[in-house]
Amino acid sequence: MKLAIHGLGRMGMQIARKLAESGQHEVIAYNRSHEPIEEAVGYGAIAAYTAEEVVAAFSGEQAVVWVMLPAEITDGVVMEWAGRLPGGSIIINGGNSDFRKTKELNESVKAKGMHFVDIGVSGGVWGYQNGFPLMCGTDEAQAFTVIEPALQTLVKPGGMYYHFGPSGAGHYVKMVHNAIEYGMMQSLGEGFRMLHDGPYKVMNLAAAADLWQHHSVITSWLTELSRDALAENPELEGISGYVAESGEARWTLEAAKDMGIDLPAIQAAFDVRLRSQQGETNFATKVVAAQRNKFGAHNLNGEGKA
Amino acid sequence: MKLAIHGLGRMGMQIARKLAESGQHEVIAYNRSHEPIEEAVGYGAIAAYTAEEVVAAFSGEQAVVWVMLPAEITDGVVMEWAGRLPGGSIIINGGNSDFRKTKELNESVKAKGMHFVDIGVSGGVWGYQNGFPLMCGTDEAQAFTVIEPALQTLVKPGGMYYHFGPSGAGHYVKMVHNAIEYGMMQSLGEGFRMLHDGPYKVMNLAAAADLWQHHSVITSWLTELSRDALAENPELEGISGYVAESGEARWTLEAAKDMGIDLPAIQAAFDVRLRSQQGETNFATKVVAAQRNKFGAHNLNGEGKA
Repeated sequence: MKLAIHGLGRMGMQIARKLAESGQHEVIAYNRSHEPIEEAVGYGAIAAYTAEEVVAAFSGEQAVVWVMLPAEITDGVVMEWAGRLPGGSIIINGGNSDFRKTKELNESVKAKGMHFVDIGVSGGVWGYQNGFPLMCGTDEAQAFTVIEPALQTLVKPGGMYYHFGPSGAGHYVKMVHNAIEYGMMQSLGEGFRMLHDGPYKVMNLAAAADLWQHHSVITSWLTELSRDALAENPELEGISGYVAESGEARWTLEAAKDMGIDLPAIQAAFDVRLRSQQGETNFATKVVAAQRNKFGAHNLNGEGKA
Repeated sequence: MKLAIHGLGRMGMQIARKLAESGQHEVIAYNRSHEPIEEAVGYGAIAAYTAEEVVAAFSGEQAVVWVMLPAEITDGVVMEWAGRLPGGSIIINGGNSDFRKTKELNESVKAKGMHFVDIGVSGGVWGYQNGFPLMCGTDEAQAFTVIEPALQTLVKPGGMYYHFGPSGAGHYVKMVHNAIEYGMMQSLGEGFRMLHDGPYKVMNLAAAADLWQHHSVITSWLTELSRDALAENPELEGISGYVAESGEARWTLEAAKDMGIDLPAIQAAFDVRLRSQQGETNFATKVVAAQRNKFGAHNLNGEGKA
């Protein structure tokens, strides 16, 4: 199929690359700065340096534009596409957005005669290799079938896509996924701190993580990434322990409060990140920062998103 | 090697079976009630119906006795063996004990001229098949080498053993493992509750868990077990949501307090279990109960340990 990717950051580039390299899709690569466009062209994508060039690439027919941008600017960008593309086109928001805003935006996009699909993308910088887990929501089953060929490529070899329900459902499932992630990361961080700061002074933390990764109850990708980080840098030197929060846990806690649901473990993990930003850091928050770096190539000292 | 297993419960039986079936060890199976002894004999173990028969099986030579009993009775049983076995024998405590008590007990066992090894065993009811993760502590490297042939059998094909440090270190690492487990389980429980009780009324929770298990950041054995539980019983009907606590998180929190370490996520998960026992249950605690049943065959409505 033919589709445009708007936003060639860490995740957008992986998606453009995987689609273009498959040889099964015509991928139009569009980005504010030009260097990533050239990189995408190297993977087989077609360059678009302006929004007009994106529109032209579809020759007036139904367009598919996958927007992969930070949440702060996504809504405005989606509405620009809704005002520019041919009627009946499909706009995908693959970034991390608040599902409540997605539902509102869906109404605005619909009013312009377009179809809107929300896709939560996990897998970090490993999705290109492993296949992406794609959490999808849309009111329109027909629009979803149009984009499925791209999803089928993106999940290879080990990912999965699923249409969870109406508009916002994909972002909702992704939001909850990230909130769970906060809790799991913090739990592991606290455990490694107990090993590091505990009564056994020569404790081998990487060996503990490695052993736990051998069919213990806490076997997990996050344990594996912790093992790798601790094997490379046992004292996590050079990591301040500042941990960014990128919105999903905050949105989850807000939504839970509105529904009268208590999320004590996720709340605790979120609060630790906020306090880390005020300088309250320790070995647990260093482990969390190291995990984020491993799965998402996030800056070890907290700048940047997700 | 020749060793006795004292305590043929869920975990003890798996260990006796795996050792006996390997054909590489002489396994003496001893238990208060006789039926499990007969079962172990079926796997190739040698029956011992009394402590005297256990001692006799070693013909006055260095004995190895692996005690696999509930924490409450373990200390007394270990001291009975320390008073009964030939000097220089090795006693292993493979149950979940408080590492502080393990260190004290080690001194008492040493004073009787015996060697003491602590081993934390994870892997639940799947260890027989997957291989056990075995977290080991002992002051005595020589004694450890004596029991290594048994450990090498027990970790096959996918487990691992590691000697983390002096007496209590094995139980310490296992205690911390279980505390992390509490936090991870609660985080997942809270997330599934957000899906179940959230704004999307026909949400497929098993599909979410399955998708998350396809290379998302929260890919984990606990997510896999949640998926299986939710696929079999989407509403978790018949599960009260009462969740037992078996000591390790409590000990971890006590030890952390003594060291001035804050463990907010683990504390939150622990507190939820306590409140569940006072009737404050919800879909999150039902998920935790379902996970425990899946990995440990724990009673779905909370009775029983671990």
